[in-house]
Amino acid sequence: MSAPRMVGVLGGMGPAATVDFYGKLVEETAATCDQEHVPVVIWGNPRVPDRSLSLLGGEDPTPYLRRGIEALKQAGCEVLAVPCNTAHAFVPRLADVAGLELVSIIEVTADALAADGVRRAGVLATTGTRQAGLYADALRQRGVTVIEPDEPGQRHVTAAIGAVKSGGVRPVHTRALAEVSRSLADRGAERVVTACTELVLALDSSRVPVPVLDPARLLARRVAAVALG
Amino acid sequence: MSAPRMVGVLGGMGPAATVDFYGKLVEETAATCDQEHVPVVIWGNPRVPDRSLSLLGGEDPTPYLRRGIEALKQAGCEVLAVPCNTAHAFVPRLADVAGLELVSIIEVTADALAADGVRRAGVLATTGTRQAGLYADALRQRGVTVIEPDEPGQRHVTAAIGAVKSGGVRPVHTRALAEVSRSLADRGAERVVTACTELVLALDSSRVPVPVLDPARLLARRVAAVALG
Repeated sequence: MSAPRMVGVLGGMGPAATVDFYGKLVEETAATCDQEHVPVVIWGNPRVPDRSLSLLGGEDPTPYLRRGIEALKQAGCEVLAVPCNTAHAFVPRLADVAGLELVSIIEVTADALAADGVRRAGVLATTGTRQAGLYADALRQRGVTVIEPDEPGQRHVTAAIGAVKSGGVRPVHTRALAEVSRSLADRGAERVVTACTELVLALDSSRVPVPVLDPARLLARRVAAVALG
Repeated sequence: MSAPRMVGVLGGMGPAATVDFYGKLVEETAATCDQEHVPVVIWGNPRVPDRSLSLLGGEDPTPYLRRGIEALKQAGCEVLAVPCNTAHAFVPRLADVAGLELVSIIEVTADALAADGVRRAGVLATTGTRQAGLYADALRQRGVTVIEPDEPGQRHVTAAIGAVKSGGVRPVHTRALAEVSRSLADRGAERVVTACTELVLALDSSRVPVPVLDPARLLARRVAAVALG
């Protein structure tokens, strides 16, 4: 076994989603003792301004993201993972500048959909991710059509994300999210993608009539493979 | 609210226990949005040589721990948390040298037992933690007597810890751990302390006739308070 590459995780966006991702990274690593696991450094600065609001005209998170990426580089990381979909409107360029290999949660998910032969994918995401066209662009390149919630549906998605971030997910959120997911399937979606790392903590996939794809899980799997060679 | 202090987590010992601690840190923080959470940097190098084996004559983990602590200091951390009890045989001195304020999992737990008026505490820990006298010393200073498993019981504890680290906890482990815990209660323990961060992932506290104390939870609570002032 060659020496593993150290993975930098730009996290804290939000903290619960980073915990979820880190847990999946451990699960997705075939290890029989501590020493076989992936070496990681997690930069968890939850004070990064809201990524989605920024894309809609709020404070720019770039300086915060740059500082985190630089700290990860300085700590010896070679590979970068960012368990926040919306942040991917900003991080590819910053990772390039810092010389870190970004494993993009968007690209990994788009690859998985294409590999499964999916033609129409339902995508649940922040308003910022939608407006930046992150999934729409990546999927279009692979011939996959994106199906997104209508305006009332998007309001339910936004409310569920906020509930996870405040630690207050209630049945009203999980019910609405399942309903929005079902409506995407009704419109032809063959998969529902929880394309915001908070949503996987609020959506009960057993209530969705098509398979639910978890980008955080896909990212964890790819990162473990890249790090351990 | 004053600016929060950045917390350094020296983790990866093992990885699943660090995930568990990080999750508890998020839970123990009263926050209504990302930005109110504790800023953390987690240094998760699972390649640190086994702490318990080291205390029994194996490879010295000190250089690995020192490097992690220095990286956390360099990243801007002021407070240090280490979700590995056995590592506390090494870290207080290293934290001192680096100028980081260590919130000790041992001291926090000893404080909680003393505050509860406990006179006899059952302690489940690695053989290294036992031989280094980490809990015995801290509890003696507070007038609390430590009750530890007998030799066959300690072998069950060691097996359960190994099972968590390899992701392979089975009913045989959880049953044995509950049995060892009950025997501590039979010998007069008023509490059972899961004094190895892996054990809380394998012990079903509902099968123990006395309250089970989780040092990782106590550490998370204290760290959130220290960081957010």
